[in-house]
Amino acid sequence: MNNFSKEVMAVGEMASGAKLTVPVYSFKQEGTSAPNVYIQANMHGAEVQGNAVIFQLLELLKHCQLRSNITLVPYANPVACNHKNGEYTLGRFDPITGVNWNRMYHFDQSIIQPFAEKNIDASEAEIKSQFEQLLITQVEQKLDHNIWGLTTGQRIAYQLQRLAHQADIVLDLHTGPISSKHLYCPEYAQASAKHFNIEHTLLIPNDFDGAMDEATFCPWWSLQQSFQGLGRNFVMGEGAFAKESFTVELGSQEQIDLEVAKQDAQSLLTYLQSKGVISGEEYQPETMTRYACYLKDYKALYSPMGGMVDYLAEFGQPLSAGEPLARILRMDNYGDGEALHYVSLEQEVIPILHFASASVNQGTELYKVFCNYFEL
Amino acid sequence: MNNFSKEVMAVGEMASGAKLTVPVYSFKQEGTSAPNVYIQANMHGAEVQGNAVIFQLLELLKHCQLRSNITLVPYANPVACNHKNGEYTLGRFDPITGVNWNRMYHFDQSIIQPFAEKNIDASEAEIKSQFEQLLITQVEQKLDHNIWGLTTGQRIAYQLQRLAHQADIVLDLHTGPISSKHLYCPEYAQASAKHFNIEHTLLIPNDFDGAMDEATFCPWWSLQQSFQGLGRNFVMGEGAFAKESFTVELGSQEQIDLEVAKQDAQSLLTYLQSKGVISGEEYQPETMTRYACYLKDYKALYSPMGGMVDYLAEFGQPLSAGEPLARILRMDNYGDGEALHYVSLEQEVIPILHFASASVNQGTELYKVFCNYFEL
Amino acid sequence: MNNFSKEVMAVGEMASGAKLTVPVYSFKQEGTSAPNVYIQANMHGAEVQGNAVIFQLLELLKHCQLRSNITLVPYANPVACNHKNGEYTLGRFDPITGVNWNRMYHFDQSIIQPFAEKNIDASEAEIKSQFEQLLITQVEQKLDHNIWGLTTGQRIAYQLQRLAHQADIVLDLHTGPISSKHLYCPEYAQASAKHFNIEHTLLIPNDFDGAMDEATFCPWWSLQQSFQGLGRNFVMGEGAFAKESFTVELGSQEQIDLEVAKQDAQSLLTYLQSKGVISGEEYQPETMTRYACYLKDYKALYSPMGGMVDYLAEFGQPLSAGEPLARILRMDNYGDGEALHYVSLEQEVIPILHFASASVNQGTELYKVFCNYFEL
Amino acid sequence: MNNFSKEVMAVGEMASGAKLTVPVYSFKQEGTSAPNVYIQANMHGAEVQGNAVIFQLLELLKHCQLRSNITLVPYANPVACNHKNGEYTLGRFDPITGVNWNRMYHFDQSIIQPFAEKNIDASEAEIKSQFEQLLITQVEQKLDHNIWGLTTGQRIAYQLQRLAHQADIVLDLHTGPISSKHLYCPEYAQASAKHFNIEHTLLIPNDFDGAMDEATFCPWWSLQQSFQGLGRNFVMGEGAFAKESFTVELGSQEQIDLEVAKQDAQSLLTYLQSKGVISGEEYQPETMTRYACYLKDYKALYSPMGGMVDYLAEFGQPLSAGEPLARILRMDNYGDGEALHYVSLEQEVIPILHFASASVNQGTELYKVFCNYFEL
Repeated sequence: MNNFSKEVMAVGEMASGAKLTVPVYSFKQEGTSAPNVYIQANMHGAEVQGNAVIFQLLELLKHCQLRSNITLVPYANPVACNHKNGEYTLGRFDPITGVNWNRMYHFDQSIIQPFAEKNIDASEAEIKSQFEQLLITQVEQKLDHNIWGLTTGQRIAYQLQRLAHQADIVLDLHTGPISSKHLYCPEYAQASAKHFNIEHTLLIPNDFDGAMDEATFCPWWSLQQSFQGLGRNFVMGEGAFAKESFTVELGSQEQIDLEVAKQDAQSLLTYLQSKGVISGEEYQPETMTRYACYLKDYKALYSPMGGMVDYLAEFGQPLSAGEPLARILRMDNYGDGEALHYVSLEQEVIPILHFASASVNQGTELYKVFCNYFEL
Repeated sequence: MNNFSKEVMAVGEMASGAKLTVPVYSFKQEGTSAPNVYIQANMHGAEVQGNAVIFQLLELLKHCQLRSNITLVPYANPVACNHKNGEYTLGRFDPITGVNWNRMYHFDQSIIQPFAEKNIDASEAEIKSQFEQLLITQVEQKLDHNIWGLTTGQRIAYQLQRLAHQADIVLDLHTGPISSKHLYCPEYAQASAKHFNIEHTLLIPNDFDGAMDEATFCPWWSLQQSFQGLGRNFVMGEGAFAKESFTVELGSQEQIDLEVAKQDAQSLLTYLQSKGVISGEEYQPETMTRYACYLKDYKALYSPMGGMVDYLAEFGQPLSAGEPLARILRMDNYGDGEALHYVSLEQEVIPILHFASASVNQGTELYKVFCNYFEL
Repeated sequence: MNNFSKEVMAVGEMASGAKLTVPVYSFKQEGTSAPNVYIQANMHGAEVQGNAVIFQLLELLKHCQLRSNITLVPYANPVACNHKNGEYTLGRFDPITGVNWNRMYHFDQSIIQPFAEKNIDASEAEIKSQFEQLLITQVEQKLDHNIWGLTTGQRIAYQLQRLAHQADIVLDLHTGPISSKHLYCPEYAQASAKHFNIEHTLLIPNDFDGAMDEATFCPWWSLQQSFQGLGRNFVMGEGAFAKESFTVELGSQEQIDLEVAKQDAQSLLTYLQSKGVISGEEYQPETMTRYACYLKDYKALYSPMGGMVDYLAEFGQPLSAGEPLARILRMDNYGDGEALHYVSLEQEVIPILHFASASVNQGTELYKVFCNYFEL
Repeated sequence: MNNFSKEVMAVGEMASGAKLTVPVYSFKQEGTSAPNVYIQANMHGAEVQGNAVIFQLLELLKHCQLRSNITLVPYANPVACNHKNGEYTLGRFDPITGVNWNRMYHFDQSIIQPFAEKNIDASEAEIKSQFEQLLITQVEQKLDHNIWGLTTGQRIAYQLQRLAHQADIVLDLHTGPISSKHLYCPEYAQASAKHFNIEHTLLIPNDFDGAMDEATFCPWWSLQQSFQGLGRNFVMGEGAFAKESFTVELGSQEQIDLEVAKQDAQSLLTYLQSKGVISGEEYQPETMTRYACYLKDYKALYSPMGGMVDYLAEFGQPLSAGEPLARILRMDNYGDGEALHYVSLEQEVIPILHFASASVNQGTELYKVFCNYFEL
């Protein structure tokens, strides 16, 4: 049975002085022969199912034959996960500033071109180790040399990112509000999406918007492009650039289900096995129709009115143009107006998730849908 | 087809001066021959399904043969129903004061004994009409003569109560957090519980704690007891005292489902038809095992620890002593403690509802259950 | 210099498993010759100034000659004090249930009469020690024998109450929203109010509503009354019944001022010196006009409209009938209505505190005022 | 006396169907001979003092000799201003999404260069009128042609922006949390800062980050630069480009003071008179030392620890390097650690504002300060 070590990382202090910590579980191998892995969960406070998935991963990994280092971090953001607003967890953004907790990671584009120029003749192994070290050093400097201080979220994000930069594969476990499972996958890693038991994949470009997945693959993608501009060609996803990061959306927030978590853990192991992280062939992807769309075609639909929403569209199934996604109840209009308003679109889409509550203001995000989707 | 009238009642003003209003729908009959009815929904902000039930009731009542006056009030508390906290509705209490919106109705015990003494020889009809008028006058005085003002919630509650006191039957439509359907029924009206298509009934005593149901039946129950003490006997639920109030818990909060609402509307019509409010025999109660328990045996179970909860127990089914209600995930204990904690009870219970989120603090209410239940 | 001991008391767990603790500082004397003292602060999350007062008390007490045991508990409720809602602390009630944190202490009226009957012939010293022990045992049983669990707030309250019942003098440090200093004082202890440097005192009756001060003096007051009914007379505030509890309102919430805290600490020491807790005559009450009123005459004024409030009345000074307390701005009425509405009362009052924000709904508590006040 | 017209603009709908509206006051002149003016207040919910300033402006403008059109919009964002969280207003961001309400205005950089190229030979008057029209048309299209809908905040922002683009001078009235008065001023309009009675000015560059001031001056500044690139030179702030936008920070949030508002209204009229909007010389700027710094030198200091803050530094006065800005109380460290932590900086700064509450988490923004400031 594999042994893991457990460390506790201090990530924040509350007004009473209470320290908030994050447990970090590590399986370390000698002489790793496969990509190192970093998995975290619960960066958004209400998105708790990933903790259960990490529980099941730990249970399963103890009995796998491991070929590289794996680090697992549940409760990645205890500030968010402990923040109750009424009965629910206010977890997507810092309640003081409104900033999304998953938009605070670091990436400094200005380091890319100089690094490429300086290392134009370096070996692939040197490039890998030195660029990794540069990325780690950068976040460590952010953490340690902060005359003006760090925001609450930056302090958490940078500590996580320091761990993530040491890995080749990063899995950031999230959920939607009320949602089907789906995967955010960098465009170059499209082939890997088939190894997850997840039917819907978003293909994302090389744009950094502050998220963990972007923060770990954008630097390498940008570096590859810089090298290309200098005439040296690498392939993203291979060799030194065998870096893949995914945001795995596990379903709906505000719930834990350990049985479903076991299936999700197996889905992640299927992917990791395909990368050689674990030996053997125990975990094989399920046969399913996998749909994908590009991020630009992942559209949000905002409510045309205030009201109470009866969500009608089934997740994950193509919905024909004109078919209703939802109907909005407006009892104040009953008797002298339109008490039921049907919401539909003029094109075929696949509904992926909808808002967490039936009560919406005019302008609340009702649904997110795949447009122009295609089979993977 | 029956016609209803629609009025709009101003119940509050926000900081911007915006007025919040409540629509009031009334079916009026000439020469009523059955109990008058008052139905409201959504006093608690997140408990929106009742609005859909009122929609379906209006649709159905238009085609019924009505024998009394029926008043329906959706969106009873727009202050609460419009109050978003993050994605969810903070709706059980006034966000400024913490006071439960359904604990602000009025009942002045001190009017009972003097009324009984003064009307000891009055006819039953006189008692009914004069006591009704007294109750209405009391809330109107509260509304109109308020040197020190009314709280936000009192202003709403008293306006609703003024309407409710004009009826003989009061149905206050609520929901639980994540919940099965259940009914709060005064002990004397136990026989009526069988006319609802609801499997679980709570029998409540003559104690006033501020809720709408209590505010409308406690005065009459107390009056009946005062008369009894003076040697004049009436039967609660009959004649002048044919007053029944129910809190109908329709299931879970934060959702609207118009199909389910139609079934719930039919369930309410079944009860109303049994009371002669609508003619005919169209609506008959379904055959089902109906369980009840007394309010004192409706127990809340508080979480013994902070953590993330995988709720296991099925609603509405007896759960044997020792069987787990839930398991609590504590990843911080993984590896050096107990990562899964099972929660069970030492007696058989029927789980009725559980907390709305998987994330709980130590001391959060996990479940509410029937103990010492019996078949109705 | 006096030494104190420091212990840490675990009072709660968050969803991530994070434990919340409360520091407890104790000065212990051998052979105490004066009342023992318990002082706590910050039961309401936003009411933080008491922590600074305890800081200054600790600094001062180290250099006093102490004659009894003193226990000091800052950060009494870390769940509340760590709960940010936006920029502010949501601290008066449990954000999940709405229940006021200072309404969860324990008092069981049913133990009083049996105790009096059983101890009708006991010595005063026996009565004191045995009733103290009974009160402590009761809360310990609540803490330790809880099949159904305790709410988050009960667990905190009972642990604090266990400490408080070991003292004769209880000082619970609070603040108002935006407020002058004032004191809640049991009616029988009126003479003690003059020893605080606080100009305004509320005299409260023997009614238990769940607060710490009531939870510690009501049992004794009730016991004294029971003995009286049995023909044995004690004087409240003397001998075995030398029990005094005060809620000290230190001013406004959401702020810390260490200089003001030093003055407040000196004011508390003035009272404690008058009770012999510290030797000497260093701390003498300031000369000031002290006003008091009975709790029934401490009135809240609720806003007659939504709007934005320019609070005009000065705290602590008698305000003549008809003089404006506030004016409410209603820009939506500018040009075609009343843009400024003046709020006044028909009697003379002393304004004590007002709402924390300029933005009010119709029905928000604007001011609290002393009516029918008198000089102490 | 000047007459104004009043219109009501619908900007949002809540879940109950309640419509939220904004009053729009307009003074219209025939044959305007000065810049048109747009003034709004309360885009952030807690920042209410601007409504009182608009009240006083309306009172004063009625008696001025006006030379152009002036539009005034109080309560610009009723969704935010009505959103109570506990006692306070959660007003800086949409409570559902966390997005800052003042980051949702529209600016499409891609229209600039084509417009300049097309109008390279147009008269200055044509450029002004056609570019104004283009900006207005753009936001109208956003409002009217939105298949996917608009967010709650966009709908409000675009409606306000449609009005603002019709003016030459835009004043957006805000406040800080607890704050001194200060002014956000585009760098090219630095000379205008001296006409406000405001001691501290931030000079901001031509970067669009979504705010109202930027949304109204950035398009013109960008256009001027495009023309310059094409060889046609205009001066920002003059002729067709006499466009100036300011964010006026009036002091602290959560309060209304009508007397202070009158002074602020006079300060705004002083500026407007300097621009010829009102005739005469009644309003002259006060003599005061005015400090300015560039936006890049306006620094936030984040708390190095959780705790409770005694804010020490006085606003608006230079604070020497090493002098404490604040001290942080940590009672949990009393007796065995550092109970008071002093916060200082290694350079001279002018403190401008601080956080709204004494309770801070590690990483909460404590202060914002001017660095490298200079006299205007």
